[in-house]
Amino acid sequence: MTNNVVDFETAFEQVKKEVAKLLTKGPSLISGYTSYLTEATGKMMRAKAVLACAMDENDMVPRDAIIFAAAVETLHLATLVHDDIMDDADTRRGQITLQKKSGKRNAVICGDYLLASAIREIASVDDTDKYKDFDFSKYVEAIALGELRQNINNRNFRLGTFRYLSIIDGKTAALFEASFHAGAMAGNATEKEIKLYRRLGRYTGIAFQLTDDCIDYEVSEDTALKPVQSDFENGVVTLPLIHTFEEDASLAERAEKGLISKEEILKEVTKHGGVEYTHKTAEKYYKKGVEAIEALQLSGKKREILEGLITKAYVGLKK
Amino acid sequence: MTNNVVDFETAFEQVKKEVAKLLTKGPSLISGYTSYLTEATGKMMRAKAVLACAMDENDMVPRDAIIFAAAVETLHLATLVHDDIMDDADTRRGQITLQKKSGKRNAVICGDYLLASAIREIASVDDTDKYKDFDFSKYVEAIALGELRQNINNRNFRLGTFRYLSIIDGKTAALFEASFHAGAMAGNATEKEIKLYRRLGRYTGIAFQLTDDCIDYEVSEDTALKPVQSDFENGVVTLPLIHTFEEDASLAERAEKGLISKEEILKEVTKHGGVEYTHKTAEKYYKKGVEAIEALQLSGKKREILEGLITKAYVGLKK
Repeated sequence: MTNNVVDFETAFEQVKKEVAKLLTKGPSLISGYTSYLTEATGKMMRAKAVLACAMDENDMVPRDAIIFAAAVETLHLATLVHDDIMDDADTRRGQITLQKKSGKRNAVICGDYLLASAIREIASVDDTDKYKDFDFSKYVEAIALGELRQNINNRNFRLGTFRYLSIIDGKTAALFEASFHAGAMAGNATEKEIKLYRRLGRYTGIAFQLTDDCIDYEVSEDTALKPVQSDFENGVVTLPLIHTFEEDASLAERAEKGLISKEEILKEVTKHGGVEYTHKTAEKYYKKGVEAIEALQLSGKKREILEGLITKAYVGLKK
Repeated sequence: MTNNVVDFETAFEQVKKEVAKLLTKGPSLISGYTSYLTEATGKMMRAKAVLACAMDENDMVPRDAIIFAAAVETLHLATLVHDDIMDDADTRRGQITLQKKSGKRNAVICGDYLLASAIREIASVDDTDKYKDFDFSKYVEAIALGELRQNINNRNFRLGTFRYLSIIDGKTAALFEASFHAGAMAGNATEKEIKLYRRLGRYTGIAFQLTDDCIDYEVSEDTALKPVQSDFENGVVTLPLIHTFEEDASLAERAEKGLISKEEILKEVTKHGGVEYTHKTAEKYYKKGVEAIEALQLSGKKREILEGLITKAYVGLKK
């Protein structure tokens, strides 16, 4: 196949189609379970990152980037399917989860299938030699390790900021880094540039996760209708809480004994500025990301999209 | 790295070391969970198959075969970890399972990690170009699909022989086929030979599964001490049972209503020759496998090992 290039919007539409194909092309048995995920893809930030990083000087995107973007989104869906098993989650983005609908057994296997499909998708790039140094499965390992660490630290109210950041570096940022990495390679970036793209990816991912952590502790008119503070109730320890416990260690002690209600936790997090602290930390990564964009000397549409992504990650998708 | 060759025994020792490395090299967090699996590798039939298929005319095995063998065994362990979650299994081969010991959450992630490690291992072969047509993730998809189909057919007492065989063709035989395929490629087999090796792998896998199915219904002095007929109790429908229900449909009806005890099932399976029928079916695949060995014109040690594997698969490991 010739290495056709298309514009960003066309490429993005093709990624959506490709992901839908991956979710539905399989044997009807699998697609019966996975096709609902086509509605669960969200904003596809990771796919957009791949495409933008691969853009050439004429704002055109090569075919390989579409393949990688579809693979990255499919892997993301696979991790969500397994996440929902681990969290015993009934819904995600307003939809009933696979594990709730079809049971944990089927969800384990469907996640495995999607993971394999994602890896298989990558093998379909035009020139595999070109991507010899891109080790997708290493990123999958990093994601799994991050999730394992988060899981082990469930209800660990002594978790420190530094360790928490290294957890989300795996759990969330690794897939962002993989996206930027793959895109940069597809776009023929130099080794030095690839390093910068990967860094930008990590920072975008960390900012994204920290902003997401805040939402759980922010009660506004918009969000009050949704369940808040489900993280604390589920024993998921994130930065707003970590900061609060670091400010007042006696709270951690009481939390360990189950002596704090979620209402009190919210009050304490507010009192100690847990959300502001987390936003500030996210801002640090946002700024580091913008520095990487500067170092890459990006301009035009490519800059616009990549800056847009890290801004969204930092400000939050809803705002 | 040069493509050194070693003899079969040395290669097999190296595979064991390589699998142990894959299970323990990771971050201590992961290996803390997975290292116990080094004791769970069993006879490593799949690894032996890879090595034997890759053997040259001097009975020597290339390095790539060691890599593939380690990857195949690691993938096998990953599927066992996820299987145990699905089966809610407390022990496997006398060892406490990961899901029992560390919970389903950790087991989901550790399985994912091992799956990624297996795929990553393959990327470390000397000449990736040589294996362009070897699509490991396609086999992973086939395995997942087979497991899903088996799971969906849990307690389906109307499952027919043909459909059952196609389920185990995925669930069990796909990984055998992958092993024979990878080995043949590493050993520079021609396309025609590769087809025959793959076929031999499938037949070995199907015979292996059918023989395994029989064990559950064979009560002998040796096996009486172990729990028998756990398959039926767990709703797992295998060939001895399928044959019995095909012979007497009223039994299936009563089983559906939960009106048959496991003691009665054992009596009926014995009466209708369910085990003999399954052994006969396994024999068919055994014979087809031997035909493939003939067609490949194998001789010497290579023939000895591959014939040994399908014989073991057919006769059973314990005999």
